[in-house]
Amino acid sequence: MSIPPPNIVDFEIKETLLCGPGPCNLWPSVREALTKPIISPLCDEYFKALDDIRTGIKYVFQTKSNLVLAISGSGHSGMETVITNLVGPEETLLIANRGIWDERAYNVATRYGIKIIVHRIAHNTTFTLEELERQIEVYRPTALFITHGDSSTGTVQKLEGLGDICHKYGTLLLVDTVVSLGGVPFFMDAWGVDAVYSSTQKALSGPAGISPVAFSARAAEKIKNSKHKTPFYFDITLLAEQWNCYGNTRYYHHTLSPPLVWALRECLRQLSIETLEKSWERHAKTTRHFHERVQRLPLEFFVPNPEHRLATVTTLALPKGYNYDDVIKYVEEKHKITIFPGRGPTADKSLRIGIMGVNSTGAVADALADALADALQALVKSSL
Amino acid sequence: MSIPPPNIVDFEIKETLLCGPGPCNLWPSVREALTKPIISPLCDEYFKALDDIRTGIKYVFQTKSNLVLAISGSGHSGMETVITNLVGPEETLLIANRGIWDERAYNVATRYGIKIIVHRIAHNTTFTLEELERQIEVYRPTALFITHGDSSTGTVQKLEGLGDICHKYGTLLLVDTVVSLGGVPFFMDAWGVDAVYSSTQKALSGPAGISPVAFSARAAEKIKNSKHKTPFYFDITLLAEQWNCYGNTRYYHHTLSPPLVWALRECLRQLSIETLEKSWERHAKTTRHFHERVQRLPLEFFVPNPEHRLATVTTLALPKGYNYDDVIKYVEEKHKITIFPGRGPTADKSLRIGIMGVNSTGAVADALADALADALQALVKSSL
Repeated sequence: MSIPPPNIVDFEIKETLLCGPGPCNLWPSVREALTKPIISPLCDEYFKALDDIRTGIKYVFQTKSNLVLAISGSGHSGMETVITNLVGPEETLLIANRGIWDERAYNVATRYGIKIIVHRIAHNTTFTLEELERQIEVYRPTALFITHGDSSTGTVQKLEGLGDICHKYGTLLLVDTVVSLGGVPFFMDAWGVDAVYSSTQKALSGPAGISPVAFSARAAEKIKNSKHKTPFYFDITLLAEQWNCYGNTRYYHHTLSPPLVWALRECLRQLSIETLEKSWERHAKTTRHFHERVQRLPLEFFVPNPEHRLATVTTLALPKGYNYDDVIKYVEEKHKITIFPGRGPTADKSLRIGIMGVNSTGAVADALADALADALQALVKSSL
Repeated sequence: MSIPPPNIVDFEIKETLLCGPGPCNLWPSVREALTKPIISPLCDEYFKALDDIRTGIKYVFQTKSNLVLAISGSGHSGMETVITNLVGPEETLLIANRGIWDERAYNVATRYGIKIIVHRIAHNTTFTLEELERQIEVYRPTALFITHGDSSTGTVQKLEGLGDICHKYGTLLLVDTVVSLGGVPFFMDAWGVDAVYSSTQKALSGPAGISPVAFSARAAEKIKNSKHKTPFYFDITLLAEQWNCYGNTRYYHHTLSPPLVWALRECLRQLSIETLEKSWERHAKTTRHFHERVQRLPLEFFVPNPEHRLATVTTLALPKGYNYDDVIKYVEEKHKITIFPGRGPTADKSLRIGIMGVNSTGAVADALADALADALQALVKSSL
């Protein structure tokens, strides 16, 4: 044997309160669901689990569409699925860019010969429907890509009415709800969204690795008539057959991850029991309370307009003289709370603090505000 | 709310002995590892876990290459990663076809403008190196795709010496080890394999959803000089930066699934503790015993030549008059053992019985042989 066996040493992992923009801690029942038995992908219990997931996804996206399923990959695999199935080579994708996920959508789209138009705004704000309509009217794109919640900036985009605008010009509306789903109101059908993807490790308080997606009837029609090919792994036509979206098919496409199937099913079950309205209310209330406490500290909101602030991720600028890494390290070590630095447009300009899913409680908001107050007090002398 | 919350009812899942071609049951320590804490993807423990996984993958593939990591998806995502990173549009891929995974490779390759040559043989045998060399000499392909173990036919392909043949003609050797890794000897470097992928839910006894891949220096060079673009999710250049393959980079590419990271790490730790040699011996011994017992039953091996038979998956034809589904159902209901029907070339011609990973023991082999004997006895009258 030219390569001897390595000595992989098990080590203790300290659990912290995860209050970055994701991943979030798990619901206890979701953690339990991870250890349910591995079952055959040919048995009735397995099909039942997939059916439950599809029912749960319809609920959380608020859609009656049948073309809903989960991609076996991270949120980025959901993004690549949505873009590649709906926008072919030489077709135009308009990207409404206000954060790093829009940059990511650009990176994805460049790989497929798609014509890309980017419309940028300041990173601490959101788009007006009027400016989006102007862009759509000029470029008549096949699709508009926009993020609902943006975890790099801490903003939430108003989407109501945008579907109608898109459809007036024959444009499909593609939406990223990775950091908003379950934490902020979202209505796929009522808002005319044509394709949406999300992820489990944010406000759903599940593990990453399995990503809900949904397509409107309009999007399904486009896919049906498309001539271009998608990656095999993201081929929604084949995946719809595996997930039995139209009845009477249980074709094998790839092997799903049973722990993630059980975990996603449990996340959706949790949310169905709590109800979306109550979950949205809880997130709004917790973050309102956190923001009230923050306002008593020498911190500044990166997003000036309260209406643009995302309920799941708050971006906060430190006063002059403080170092972002020092504050993060202090909060981690003294308070066992993980918060994140800025990223992309907020790098070195903001902390990113996520209060979502299982962590969206008054107690967590208070612990975070206490930790920040303590850090600001403890570190001020050393950094001035 | 136009879509009311569904009533997702929790249900008991009966655990069976999974003796199909995969998924396999989990090592107890792997099941435990699934519930380790979710941690921040920016912390040292996380980086340590990824480093451990890379070390373990080098060991199981027997390679010194640094371009090793795990794809966040099923084995099929590993396949698509290997093909798309190494074979560009207008380049030629030779597929050595003896089962359904080779059909799958064809399906993947057709999506990228790749010229595909398929060389087929009878499904119950394997390729000689001579016939492969003749094909390579004629077509001078960019790469040869071949499966090591084939779970649809129950065959194992001799690979030793194939790398040298490929390299003589400037061809890269791409190998699927999904159902062989850990159960059958495999030596990436010594056999001159240029790219290999595997999966966790077979002889590694882990959950599906995270797939080890490795690329030789020759393959890495090809990727470096490639002009064509890959899907974002499978872009090995970006993934190598996320996985710190060349040191000094920990770039964010996508969010890994913590339970699967811990589980894969534990699978590799288990195998490092047992050692590859002992695991290969164990699989060989268990299957030898199972085959001895099977020979006393009125069953026929689908693969006539014992040297072509895979140690992890056995394909067995029933005597005339028996119905495959009846036997499978009987074994499931009476003995709580899940075995699989044939697929592709073995559909309605064979049972597919997997004894691998945690299940590769004399006791499981005996239980299976007993169950088959019982089924043959119990069902003979009703089906004649």
